[in-house]
Amino acid sequence: MAIELYWGSGSPFAWRVMLTLEVKKLAYESKLLEFSKGEHKSPAYLQLNPRGKVPTLKDGDFVIYESLAIMSYLDRKYPEPPLFGRTPEETGLIWRALAECESYFVTAGDKVVRPIFFGKGLDKLEEIQQAAETLRREIKIIDERLAGSRWLVGENISAADIGVFPPVQLLLRAASKEAAQPLDLGLLPLAQGFPNVARWVQRVEALPNYQRTYPPHWRQ
Amino acid sequence: MAIELYWGSGSPFAWRVMLTLEVKKLAYESKLLEFSKGEHKSPAYLQLNPRGKVPTLKDGDFVIYESLAIMSYLDRKYPEPPLFGRTPEETGLIWRALAECESYFVTAGDKVVRPIFFGKGLDKLEEIQQAAETLRREIKIIDERLAGSRWLVGENISAADIGVFPPVQLLLRAASKEAAQPLDLGLLPLAQGFPNVARWVQRVEALPNYQRTYPPHWRQ
Repeated sequence: MAIELYWGSGSPFAWRVMLTLEVKKLAYESKLLEFSKGEHKSPAYLQLNPRGKVPTLKDGDFVIYESLAIMSYLDRKYPEPPLFGRTPEETGLIWRALAECESYFVTAGDKVVRPIFFGKGLDKLEEIQQAAETLRREIKIIDERLAGSRWLVGENISAADIGVFPPVQLLLRAASKEAAQPLDLGLLPLAQGFPNVARWVQRVEALPNYQRTYPPHWRQ
Repeated sequence: MAIELYWGSGSPFAWRVMLTLEVKKLAYESKLLEFSKGEHKSPAYLQLNPRGKVPTLKDGDFVIYESLAIMSYLDRKYPEPPLFGRTPEETGLIWRALAECESYFVTAGDKVVRPIFFGKGLDKLEEIQQAAETLRREIKIIDERLAGSRWLVGENISAADIGVFPPVQLLLRAASKEAAQPLDLGLLPLAQGFPNVARWVQRVEALPNYQRTYPPHWRQ
């Protein structure tokens, strides 16, 4: 039975899983849910994922959701190439990067990205700029770790890169919007403040089949 | 070289690592940092963990922080007993439980626990009760998953149990405080609303050496 991936365009969490599937060269059936039609809240989908969030992956009879959980499942089930480290130390550092991304970056990112995309809360300038400061600090840490290294942990692409890239890319897209200009986020041009991150973004974008994972509505 | 664990009394994240070390029967040197003296912000500690948070683990020359990262490192380095699953499916479900704990439970827990312990923000009743609703929903999900099962995933204790238990225990402690009474959190008595969780808490408390991991200042 084929792998089925339920996803939504622009979800950084779904993007992580698509990148994982491509890097592992796993074929899958794409089940694109239209958020605007509420397809992620349909009774049929809630049977698979009662939280009504994306992504959800179905592999035969096994259903799993939460992006990092899906990634760890896929890595254990289809081990090549290994994405969670080749040594205990790499494993630890990869999960450190992912934990930091979830705890610090994604939380702060949300406070910046949502107002820009949905136009609500743009007046809460202080909150947005505080979040932007956190984001600059976190991107700086990533930038320093990428000095002299192609990937976040070890010699190869890992779950750290795949997990961190989509939220970063989402933030950069938000920062490039007109609504972001008055907010003074201090993120762009990326190559100016964070040259190693800029090169790393290009490296991920050059992955085979990257274009297949790119959010379709971002092309419009 | 011995394992060194830098921790603080009452940190649920440090508690996770202590439980992991006990379940794996790993000897370690305890480095208890006094938050009240700012020892987690000392220059020497910031050398180990620039975020100034606990826990941090040092194993020989290798230093790692962020609780889930430490747990995954320890599991890879000292595989017995395996805490991150014996099958791909278990691995996925364990990380799902951990991801849910971080994304939904800990975030909401913070909004309830902090005001109770530090007395600040107790007047933001609506925010606290909204967070309490999330917490009741999340504990209910855990309760349902524990129906007919001793541990959260599979037949044995896993990182899911060890990761989820300390934040739950911290919340229950907060809920039992006098300052929590007017907040109407709807969490206690635990056995009434969440009987499976109540039994699971007792099961963890019955682990060998559990008492060695119990936050020292909670005894006072």
